[in-house]
Amino acid sequence: MSQREHIVTGKHLPQWSNPISHAVVVNGMCFVSGQLSVGLDGQYVEGSFREEAGRAFDNLFAVLAEAGFSKHELAFVDVAVLDMSQMHAVNELYEQHFAAGKRPARTVAQVAALPFGGKVKLMGTAVHDVG
Amino acid sequence: MSQREHIVTGKHLPQWSNPISHAVVVNGMCFVSGQLSVGLDGQYVEGSFREEAGRAFDNLFAVLAEAGFSKHELAFVDVAVLDMSQMHAVNELYEQHFAAGKRPARTVAQVAALPFGGKVKLMGTAVHDVG
Amino acid sequence: MSQREHIVTGKHLPQWSNPISHAVVVNGMCFVSGQLSVGLDGQYVEGSFREEAGRAFDNLFAVLAEAGFSKHELAFVDVAVLDMSQMHAVNELYEQHFAAGKRPARTVAQVAALPFGGKVKLMGTAVHDVG
Repeated sequence: MSQREHIVTGKHLPQWSNPISHAVVVNGMCFVSGQLSVGLDGQYVEGSFREEAGRAFDNLFAVLAEAGFSKHELAFVDVAVLDMSQMHAVNELYEQHFAAGKRPARTVAQVAALPFGGKVKLMGTAVHDVG
Repeated sequence: MSQREHIVTGKHLPQWSNPISHAVVVNGMCFVSGQLSVGLDGQYVEGSFREEAGRAFDNLFAVLAEAGFSKHELAFVDVAVLDMSQMHAVNELYEQHFAAGKRPARTVAQVAALPFGGKVKLMGTAVHDVG
Repeated sequence: MSQREHIVTGKHLPQWSNPISHAVVVNGMCFVSGQLSVGLDGQYVEGSFREEAGRAFDNLFAVLAEAGFSKHELAFVDVAVLDMSQMHAVNELYEQHFAAGKRPARTVAQVAALPFGGKVKLMGTAVHDVG
């Protein structure tokens, strides 16, 4: 029986007009699409960097939950920002959401632009531990 | 018996002068190198954004085929573009190549520059479902 | 018994003030955080592009070793640079570190800025072959 699953919609997930899945689950891995400061209606919610980062994390965690994964199963997070000097806000969220010693790996870059004109984008991969 | 495989050349793959593999296959996963609008001779083929995106998709799919993977096994695609306003062309290709509800996850950013001066780059990971 | 492991510190690893893991190991995969030209004290070491790339590779390999992975198990490497015209230095390091026909897949982009003001960042995923 195939266990591949495409997460496209969900009560707590932004509605996308884009032709993508929010996440693809296969072999105990969950590949989550880049999440931004977008509301449930799929519209960009402009805010401070901190606010946008918070909403992007919320969306990332909502997609993981819909896919049956915990945020503690995130193996790594790819962070793209418009302004590297704002990374302290992402660090604060990392400290808040993940216990010391149990944090995901991470890669960060300042890019030229993000979808919707957003300030920060989070992409992550979570993995079930099959021990 | 080791099943790790490096995809370096193939009848339908661009010849690279760069010291990389087109893809590495291990444990049912296929990690594909960033694909651009490059011909079989390894030379950049400049075109409209739509043309370059089409050729990048063709190369991505050719590498997957050489590695024994279907495009429908793509778990996610990392799209880097020089001009975010052209993403509609990538969306059209996504709609054309992937059935609704079965599309890969995706992350998108506008970067400062791409190899060859290309307009769009696609990197993807495909995963066999071992059920 | 859970085998998930977070690589946070190590004799040969840069000390980070950032709230991340250097790598997360789960199910035979090692997701390494973006590595830069940073010394063991966690301070950025500015140098030529070639020097920074060399130190980033050294850090990448040190994290892999701490996690119990060989550099030859790298499936792909994500290279972010500030100046695409310097990629020849990364290519030379690729040729030096990986045997022909056995090189990792790779994706490259020129970004707007990197942490610490660094010139090059390497992020990689290594995978044990379970045959």
